[in-house]
Amino acid sequence: MNNLKVAIIQIQTGPDKSSNLLKTAELFASIEKSRVSLVLLPEMFQCPYNLESFSIFAEDIPTGETSLFLSNLAREYGTFLVGGSIPEKKGNRYYNTSIVYNPCGEIIGIYRKTHLFDVDFENLHFQESAVLNPGNTPLLIDTPWGKIGILICYDLRFPELIRLYALRGAFMVAVPAAFNPITGPLHWEVLFRARAIDNQVYLLGASPAPYPNAFYQAYGHSLIVDPMGRVLEQLGNEEAIIIKDIDLSLVDLTRQRLPLLKHRRLDLYAINPDEKLGNSLKDQKGEAI
Amino acid sequence: MNNLKVAIIQIQTGPDKSSNLLKTAELFASIEKSRVSLVLLPEMFQCPYNLESFSIFAEDIPTGETSLFLSNLAREYGTFLVGGSIPEKKGNRYYNTSIVYNPCGEIIGIYRKTHLFDVDFENLHFQESAVLNPGNTPLLIDTPWGKIGILICYDLRFPELIRLYALRGAFMVAVPAAFNPITGPLHWEVLFRARAIDNQVYLLGASPAPYPNAFYQAYGHSLIVDPMGRVLEQLGNEEAIIIKDIDLSLVDLTRQRLPLLKHRRLDLYAINPDEKLGNSLKDQKGEAI
Repeated sequence: MNNLKVAIIQIQTGPDKSSNLLKTAELFASIEKSRVSLVLLPEMFQCPYNLESFSIFAEDIPTGETSLFLSNLAREYGTFLVGGSIPEKKGNRYYNTSIVYNPCGEIIGIYRKTHLFDVDFENLHFQESAVLNPGNTPLLIDTPWGKIGILICYDLRFPELIRLYALRGAFMVAVPAAFNPITGPLHWEVLFRARAIDNQVYLLGASPAPYPNAFYQAYGHSLIVDPMGRVLEQLGNEEAIIIKDIDLSLVDLTRQRLPLLKHRRLDLYAINPDEKLGNSLKDQKGEAI
Repeated sequence: MNNLKVAIIQIQTGPDKSSNLLKTAELFASIEKSRVSLVLLPEMFQCPYNLESFSIFAEDIPTGETSLFLSNLAREYGTFLVGGSIPEKKGNRYYNTSIVYNPCGEIIGIYRKTHLFDVDFENLHFQESAVLNPGNTPLLIDTPWGKIGILICYDLRFPELIRLYALRGAFMVAVPAAFNPITGPLHWEVLFRARAIDNQVYLLGASPAPYPNAFYQAYGHSLIVDPMGRVLEQLGNEEAIIIKDIDLSLVDLTRQRLPLLKHRRLDLYAINPDEKLGNSLKDQKGEAI
């Protein structure tokens, strides 16, 4: 179990849900003979990233079209699938939600974005919280290779949450995301690399490719980073798939050489309940469906 | 008070303490007409970075030669001075210690490296803890421009401590440091940039320049990074000084546009006593002399 083949899919997310799903399935098909064990899709991979679209494209989980589509893909290709994210409707509330499947097509975790993207740049005002509700529960999934943490986009900007995942045993963190042309060039790669370096985990990032004339231009640049912070592969703006064998022994090796997680000063700071915080981190089992 | 001129000095640290101090003074002289308000020196700027040298070069603070030398420089040039770090002897113990002076040459803070550099790379085994003791107290200094946090080198690898500084009001963090050719190319710039991006502060890093044939080769690359994560200036391997005007309004502007510090989820994690931790962070006034 020292190697793991992962795939990261980058598609343009356009205004037509069916064609977004079709494109996803087409790129998925390219892994058929590769024995990929884990596939990651982008944030809002079936829905344009804008406030108006969220409620229109929103679905129930697990009965909605996209839930079933993803379940079928996971089962058909026999892979773990971190299903990017979709707008979820639950009662009267909407969430930015990632559904995770095992190779039998069963849902093994639900993660609702916990940090909503409310920003006010000169050329980019966006307020997810105007439409969406935040999730409240981190998600670590169990796989035969170890634990994988899930974050969605803006969550990556908070070093605390990924630190919790590493402290709870994550060897990898998967991040459906959609940065933009303002923050992407300055922040995208450096944040993925720094989180990998600090926590000595593999980082996977999947973004939509930019869609011509969309209100929100995704930055693209889906990537995979190793525990030393090396970018193993990174896309540009194209629709494409990364398929990569990764060496899991590098996690332990890096932590032996540079024992960052052991050198933390718990007398000066602490971040999770195993340390000092009582019940601050509810659990890592994700949200209830 | 919206602008601040800072200087960062990068010198080779050789085996002769006097010539290390002399070189520091010479580069300092180049700021004479620049009205610099803050100067940062490298980690172990008067002592070769190796275990054998620490006890030989160690001095008392504030009576030792280097303490007095730094006090004189601060007063003569009328500048705040973060005096890199030196090996400090206090009783029977040794520390990696940064002394901070105001423009009157008075000590306004002492910071002893809290995370000791104990690593075991194939080509680099180093164990500071074999000789040094860790400090136990973070340091934020007050200046007319706001609060500045102090870290030393390996401390930068822990996102928690700099986060505490930002939460306590730092607009800038100054880091005497000495990365090396193994970790430097992969980690130096990316960590400085990510810490600046996450905490929306200015980051200053001062390293020794590499010294030919030294046991430990410093990485050099002293730099200054703005709150958006832009590298404003970065040296290579040369002995040199960075002198830079920085725009303090960018701190607030960045935090307005991208309110990261407000968007933290204190129900999921917390890191300091104002949040949930009781007395975990003792204070930020630095160590007693």
